[in-house]
Parts: sequence; structure tokens; C-alpha cells
Amino acid sequence: MSFYVFGLQNIPYIKEGDNLANLIYEAATSENINFEEKDIIVITQKIVSKAEGRIIKLYDVEPSDFAMQIGKDMEKDPRLVEIVLRESSRIIRMKGNALIVETRHGFVCANAGVDYSNVEQGYVTLLPIDPDKSAKNIRKQLMALTGKNLAVIVTDTWGRAWRLGQVDYAIGVAGMLAFKDYRGETDYTGRELHVTNMCIADELAGAAELVKGKLSGVPVVIIRGYDYPEGEGAASNIIRPLSEDLFR
Amino acid sequence: MSFYVFGLQNIPYIKEGDNLANLIYEAATSENINFEEKDIIVITQKIVSKAEGRIIKLYDVEPSDFAMQIGKDMEKDPRLVEIVLRESSRIIRMKGNALIVETRHGFVCANAGVDYSNVEQGYVTLLPIDPDKSAKNIRKQLMALTGKNLAVIVTDTWGRAWRLGQVDYAIGVAGMLAFKDYRGETDYTGRELHVTNMCIADELAGAAELVKGKLSGVPVVIIRGYDYPEGEGAASNIIRPLSEDLFR
Repeated sequence: MSFYVFGLQNIPYIKEGDNLANLIYEAATSENINFEEKDIIVITQKIVSKAEGRIIKLYDVEPSDFAMQIGKDMEKDPRLVEIVLRESSRIIRMKGNALIVETRHGFVCANAGVDYSNVEQGYVTLLPIDPDKSAKNIRKQLMALTGKNLAVIVTDTWGRAWRLGQVDYAIGVAGMLAFKDYRGETDYTGRELHVTNMCIADELAGAAELVKGKLSGVPVVIIRGYDYPEGEGAASNIIRPLSEDLFR
Repeated sequence: MSFYVFGLQNIPYIKEGDNLANLIYEAATSENINFEEKDIIVITQKIVSKAEGRIIKLYDVEPSDFAMQIGKDMEKDPRLVEIVLRESSRIIRMKGNALIVETRHGFVCANAGVDYSNVEQGYVTLLPIDPDKSAKNIRKQLMALTGKNLAVIVTDTWGRAWRLGQVDYAIGVAGMLAFKDYRGETDYTGRELHVTNMCIADELAGAAELVKGKLSGVPVVIIRGYDYPEGEGAASNIIRPLSEDLFR
């Protein structure tokens, strides 16, 4: 088994209403890249959010008293805090500059995925309302354009509880399972694996980030040759239910 | 930017005292694979632990009263619990079947990395005593054998607090930085990035896992073409200090 990871160079600046599938197809065509069966198209959340109009002008935001207080305590823009709170279903931790929340989707992350970077000054992007649905829509259109069976992963950048730095994780998945499940299979000694259920969607998201970088203007990456399990997977399947959670 | 990920097929079963660098070099040679400048050699913890003799016969372990009690409460083998406790500096969470600890290295993970799978019945493997040192040693030898500048990552499989399933993370790093640090750089709008510090060692570990799988007998993977930042990196740099930790 082997696979290859490469970026699309010719994705233009994305604006609200843009059709990402068309733009991805056109970028690939302009680079003489033909899509192949089981290619995985990995797309940065930022351009999905922009295309879907999930962008807010800070100037228009009226912070609540609660957001004002948190902003003061945490030395954050209270308008940003207000947006984060609107995107959140609960606050998990507030300390120093870290505001860790559970988003409306159920993701636990910093600032509910609300982000200043790579967006015009004075604006922030929000996560897509339903990133699995975003992935499904883009996949359906790309498959129609290419005639190939493809998978799509939408990714965002996350911190981790006990490890420094960030990695990219999957927030939307379509056309593949998010996991490769080994539970019930036996290793070479005959021992049954009881726990192993690899989150391949997150590993693929991280692999793609290595090519995207953060400043190179490569928001779309193709992973070719990885034989993923096909099926109706979703990034929402990755969310650990509150009942099984030891850290909320 | 693009990169290629492929496994070595001909790594033999590893026993205590085996020289991993020699065996990796011989496996590659037998497969007509020539090492190239800046190849990253990603090695599963399991074979590093075996080569270093970090393997324990459960039969020989005398559980303490504390381990007996935890074993009873958690329906775990008390001898396994005893080994986990010996490898740990503190218990982070105990609930249901989950025993989350901080290892002597400072890693927060389940069962201190003590593992039954892919080892003879009646034995478990422990994490290497100093996985960064293991990576350094293997790198030094592999560079002498190949004449190429290489990086080495030793990986293990980890769960995550709020996400189901597991991913591979780096527990040993040599010949490269564990992070690609964007802090202080500016995005295309001129905004300075304050937080972004990508843990590329973990993303590379996950990418390699996709090729290794868990049952395919491919414990060594080569990542070729990724232009990593060179330097004296270490996986110990990834450990979040207790003082900055919100979840311990």
C-alpha cells in the first residue's frame, strides 16, 4: 500500500456563492490533472465557509454583557467572543487566552472554529452549518463533473488537550467511512483486537495539511492511492458522545 | 509541494537485541528501494520496544493491592494494571474500562502505552524508555548505512479526549523539528498568525499509519518528498507542560 499527496495550485480566491466543485475541477484541468477512481479531495474549511457565506463583519456584532465580561477577562475582542458564544452549545474551559467550547455540531475546539486568518481585515469565518452536508454536496457535483468515484473531506485546524501545536482534523466527510475498524479482527498471534478503530479521516486531514501549509494558498489537496473503506461515513460520527466523555 | 508514502514489506519479526537500522536497510535493499535525501523513516513503537527488550511476561508480575483493586473495579487483568502503574507518574482518569495516565515521559495516554497486540500471548510491550533517543540512534545508524540525510519518527496509537477512534502520534523524533511554526508570519491579508504552530510530526505519524495498518505486518514506512524543517527536534517538545494544561 502506498499513496501520494499533492495540492491544487490554481484555486482562485473564494467568495460567497462560488461553486467549489466547479472551481476545483477547473483548477485541476488547468494543471492537467485528471481525477482518478477513489481520489480523496481534501478541502480547507476556510474556503467552504467563504463559499457558503459563513463570514461575519465584526463591526456589525453587538456583544452581550456576558461577552463583554469574558472579552475583558480574557483580553479578547468582545465581538469575537459574542460570535463564539453564538456558535457554541457550551463552554468547556476558559483560562488565560484559551476559550474551549462545544460547537453546535458537537465538536470540542478553541473559539468554536471562529477564525480571523486568511480572511479580509474586520471579518471572521464561522464553521459551515453542516460540514458533512457541504462535503456531500461538493462530492456529488465533482463526481458528476469527473465521472469518477471520489471521497471528500473538509478539514479544520485543532489544538489537542495534552499535546502542543495543532493538527488538521476532519469536520466533514463524504463517500468514505471516517474509520477503519479493526475491532473483532485478530493479529498474527491470534489475539482479537478489542479497541482499535483508526480515525482515518483525521489522519488523511493531517496528511493533506502537510501539503497545504498555512500561507501557501493551497486550500485543496488530492490524496491518491489510499484504499479507503467506502460507505456513508460522516465527520459527525467522530464526535465522542457526552456519555462516553471523561473530559467534559 | 507533494509527497509520497510507502511501506517496507520485508521487515522480519523483531526480537530483543535486533538492530533495527540494519534490518530497515536490508529490507529496503531487498525491495530495490534506495533511500533519498530527506526521506522520513516512520517506525512503529512496537518493534522499537521489542528490539529494546521493553517486553514483559505477565506471568512474572506480582500485582500490588492497589493494582488488584483497580483490576477488580475496571475488569482488567491486575498484572496489566500493575505494569501500567509502574510506567505512570500519575493517573488522569479512571472510568469504565478507560485508564488514562501520564507516563514517565509525560505523555497522557491510555494504559501508559502498555499493549497486548502483535506480541506473543502472555506478554505485553512497554513504551521505549526514551523514544527520542531511540529515534536518534536509529537515524544515526541509518545515515551511516545510506549516506543520506534522513529523519526518523517513532509512532504509537492514541485515543483523543473528544473524538472517537485513534490516530498515530509521534513519540520519538530525530533529524527534524516536530513543529512547523507560523507564529509571527503574516497571511495574505497582512494579519499576523499568533497561534499557528502545526505539529507536523503527529501529522506525519498519522499519514504513515494509513499505510502501515494494524494487521498488515508493515511496521516501517517511508515518507518521501516532504520538505520538513531540519533541526534538533524531539517528541518530548510536543508534551504540553502541566502549567499550560486545562485538562489534567
